[in-house]
Amino acid sequence: MAAELTAADLIARHRPTLDQALEAIRTRAYWSPHPEHPKAYGENGSLDLAAGKTAYDALLNTRFDLDQPGTDDWVGAEVSPYGPELGITYPHADADVLLPAMKAGQKAWRDAGAEVRALVSLEILKRISDRSHEFAHAVMHTSGQAFMMAFQAGGPHAQDRGLEAVAYAFAEQVRTPGTAQWSKPQGKRDPLELHKAFTPVPRGIGLVIGCNTFPTWNGFPGLFASLATGNAVLVKPHPRAVLPLALTVRIAREVLAEAGFDPNLVALAAERPGEGIAKTLATRPEIRIIDYTGSTAFGDWLEANARQAQVYTEKAGVNTVIVDSTANYKGMLANLAFSLSLYSGQMCTTPQNLLIPRDGIGTDEGLKSYDDVVADLARAVDGLLGDDARANGVLGALVNPDVKARLEAASALGEVALASRAVANPEFPDAVVRTPLVVKLDGTKPDAEAAYLSECFGPVSFAVAVDSSLDAVALLKRTIREKGAMTVGAYTTDAGVETAIEEACLEEAAQLSLNLTGGVYVNQTAAFSDFHGSGGNPAANAALTDGAFVANRFRVVEVRREG
Amino acid sequence: MAAELTAADLIARHRPTLDQALEAIRTRAYWSPHPEHPKAYGENGSLDLAAGKTAYDALLNTRFDLDQPGTDDWVGAEVSPYGPELGITYPHADADVLLPAMKAGQKAWRDAGAEVRALVSLEILKRISDRSHEFAHAVMHTSGQAFMMAFQAGGPHAQDRGLEAVAYAFAEQVRTPGTAQWSKPQGKRDPLELHKAFTPVPRGIGLVIGCNTFPTWNGFPGLFASLATGNAVLVKPHPRAVLPLALTVRIAREVLAEAGFDPNLVALAAERPGEGIAKTLATRPEIRIIDYTGSTAFGDWLEANARQAQVYTEKAGVNTVIVDSTANYKGMLANLAFSLSLYSGQMCTTPQNLLIPRDGIGTDEGLKSYDDVVADLARAVDGLLGDDARANGVLGALVNPDVKARLEAASALGEVALASRAVANPEFPDAVVRTPLVVKLDGTKPDAEAAYLSECFGPVSFAVAVDSSLDAVALLKRTIREKGAMTVGAYTTDAGVETAIEEACLEEAAQLSLNLTGGVYVNQTAAFSDFHGSGGNPAANAALTDGAFVANRFRVVEVRREG
Repeated sequence: MAAELTAADLIARHRPTLDQALEAIRTRAYWSPHPEHPKAYGENGSLDLAAGKTAYDALLNTRFDLDQPGTDDWVGAEVSPYGPELGITYPHADADVLLPAMKAGQKAWRDAGAEVRALVSLEILKRISDRSHEFAHAVMHTSGQAFMMAFQAGGPHAQDRGLEAVAYAFAEQVRTPGTAQWSKPQGKRDPLELHKAFTPVPRGIGLVIGCNTFPTWNGFPGLFASLATGNAVLVKPHPRAVLPLALTVRIAREVLAEAGFDPNLVALAAERPGEGIAKTLATRPEIRIIDYTGSTAFGDWLEANARQAQVYTEKAGVNTVIVDSTANYKGMLANLAFSLSLYSGQMCTTPQNLLIPRDGIGTDEGLKSYDDVVADLARAVDGLLGDDARANGVLGALVNPDVKARLEAASALGEVALASRAVANPEFPDAVVRTPLVVKLDGTKPDAEAAYLSECFGPVSFAVAVDSSLDAVALLKRTIREKGAMTVGAYTTDAGVETAIEEACLEEAAQLSLNLTGGVYVNQTAAFSDFHGSGGNPAANAALTDGAFVANRFRVVEVRREG
Repeated sequence: MAAELTAADLIARHRPTLDQALEAIRTRAYWSPHPEHPKAYGENGSLDLAAGKTAYDALLNTRFDLDQPGTDDWVGAEVSPYGPELGITYPHADADVLLPAMKAGQKAWRDAGAEVRALVSLEILKRISDRSHEFAHAVMHTSGQAFMMAFQAGGPHAQDRGLEAVAYAFAEQVRTPGTAQWSKPQGKRDPLELHKAFTPVPRGIGLVIGCNTFPTWNGFPGLFASLATGNAVLVKPHPRAVLPLALTVRIAREVLAEAGFDPNLVALAAERPGEGIAKTLATRPEIRIIDYTGSTAFGDWLEANARQAQVYTEKAGVNTVIVDSTANYKGMLANLAFSLSLYSGQMCTTPQNLLIPRDGIGTDEGLKSYDDVVADLARAVDGLLGDDARANGVLGALVNPDVKARLEAASALGEVALASRAVANPEFPDAVVRTPLVVKLDGTKPDAEAAYLSECFGPVSFAVAVDSSLDAVALLKRTIREKGAMTVGAYTTDAGVETAIEEACLEEAAQLSLNLTGGVYVNQTAAFSDFHGSGGNPAANAALTDGAFVANRFRVVEVRREG
């Protein structure tokens, strides 16, 4: 078929962006081609705020047809954490039909080569970017994120992570040249001469198992890493967060078809409530790569059972902040208050345990006792969230009833330093909006361990009193080693303590943010520069994004001939 | 302690070599810094032929002390496939003492950085290179390889593979810069500024499980890849092939100490006969990386059970050569005859199944029937090995009694087209030297499948009659998919058949050599240019060497600060 989108078109449109991305992952300086300000959209074909809302509304209460082979039912029961039912149904697939159909286009996709695959991926991302306002609503009403966060984290930041994965995938594939001429001297005889051709070949079909809280941000890296390395990709979204990934799949299929490839290279696998198709799909022989974000239990199950596949997991961890001392007490409190509050603490990167010496900490405002620090932090959170409109904008809604139940149970775990408060949302009266709970625990009491050494996902944190900062470092190490950590934060003005904390993070392979007091938060990472997770502690077996995340998604086949 | 070998020394000695290796893996043109001619040694501190023999002889019947912590016994029962007992005992380790001792030096090794680790690795390889003649005897008398092969494959070629792994490890670690300054514009406000530091950190201790046939060639890549990425490395040699790796460990420990590092970063784990310590070690929590070459059964066990580790395996496969047609019949026969004969077929890359159309093949000497081809191949092998001295030089000795038993049983599998012959070795009368056996099988008979679809490691190959070259391609695909393949060879002058074979290899991820008629053989790969295995079919889950082989041996820890 004649492609509407030729390779020349794709090169002209996207090669400069790819080159900039390749440079960014090399220097790790700030870079993004995806504007994060909502007003930057509305021209050159992109949807503005109003058009995005209109597009989203048009999706509600419809059948989301993707024209996929093997569709045997229509399923979907998404209910927005803000209240409304989405009323959208999606294709349910007969895997015995869909998976073979997905393999049909793989040869052409493989033969297209790494550059065309990267550029097609960039075209997909560009069209997603143009519809960032539509995605914002889809992410908001599946994850419960507040609109601005859903727009930024679910839109440009997720697109950045997708593009980063494409850049790594491309760089990895072109490390080996397409051909080589090999000439081995043989003394006085003629040299041995071989012509060698090297082709990156896909592993098979990649399975992306999406999560409820960040369907695009956590879904895009695996999706684009697998696609750009030549694999077909089956997307199995979380049943509560289908729409953002269904939109993604639709756009990917459109672009693939326009570029002359089989749209079935990307497909959706929606499921009935309670069907649990992830287990069935994950062990199919056609599935050779799995990207998963979610619970430790299912992540561990995948690693142990999906042995035919490369499995990349982001599971749960327990994130720690050590509060030893600070030269900017107000800045520290404000920074921590925002970190605890953003999206009601429903980020895999939100701090849970704040380790504070019981004898207090040195600050630019003098010595602050443990009780002072906890009370001042509580006041900082109250100040940040005192205005309901602002609170709604920071907190979003609780993503599901489990989080609410966990929050309600957590206040019994110790002395409540800051009670959680329900915030009314005038636009969405059914939304469950809660401010963070802070509970005091004594780190030296064995009965407190069960609380602070378990992940309590949601707006719950523990102010853990420790005997000293060195004890805090020891507890940090133990927590990372036993429970994993996506992030570690620390505040200290003491060079010795700083070194000890850095050493703990180097030994246990955890990502550390030191003395953040401004507009960067421990729970946020920037694509092209920050790694998300380390892949070296139990919280995740992979990092977003490094060479290891892409290098084993394809293999290189060599054909050599004399001459 | 004051290092005798400073970083400046190491840079001056080895940085140019490292840079050349980095260039070679990028271009994949011919390159090697390790001369493969035995006479190239003897100057600048390297041992010549006589000195190598003297050094080897001095090792026999001694205790091979490595001054390792936790040595609780002395073990060793190596018997040369050429007859003599080596009489060497090696330290047996108490893992509860040795493993913690190996971790003691890891911080300093990590802090040394990627470049120093690479250059220390190159110094180790240089000293090994200087002793290539000593290693040649050690490899010969453990593997049974003939002297020249033991010298080349066990010496310079193994050193090339080690250096290649160091180059990949270095390149992978420096893809991320040591530091970055990140400045994110904030419109009219001041930009957000972060300083970021990125440190490659090791996973822990790497375990290298050596094999009997290629202790250095197959052992060096994993050893050097793990060491150069900051890990300590415990070497568990095959009990029949300890000496080459014990020499390696001794040299590594000397160099580490001279460079100011803890020699316990590299250690040996020799075992009592039948002790089977690989299983115990492989599941120790300290072991985070495993490199294994050997049987499929134990490789599969490691992949399933050593879940705390990254596991890189090279297992067994069934290698195929499709004989469709040729423009150089004599060259083809000579090339195949040598491939089947070299080291008595005891290479993981030796062809086993020769698929030949029963109606014959077109050649530059006219149509040759299936029987003609098989008879002519038998004559070519006879011609190559007719002289006993030459035969000994090509064949070497059978590595162990299992190979002999398998060879003897194989002649009952079908009609013998070429019988195996015992060759006398005047220097080593106890050596078991055998020429290759070729057995005819009918590929369309189900009862022949059990033979040609099993690996028959040793000097056994099957001339499998097939109905057509397309049937041969179908059988090739099935063989790779079900049994794996380290190599595929093919002879054809038909563009359509060639394309079909290439496509089969691309789809099943196998490395293909086409129409080899000269001095390059399907069973040989050259470091820096050829991949050994693909990592994409059941014969091996990794390739030597690519990005995937090194990228997950370390993780990158980021520390970020404002400013």
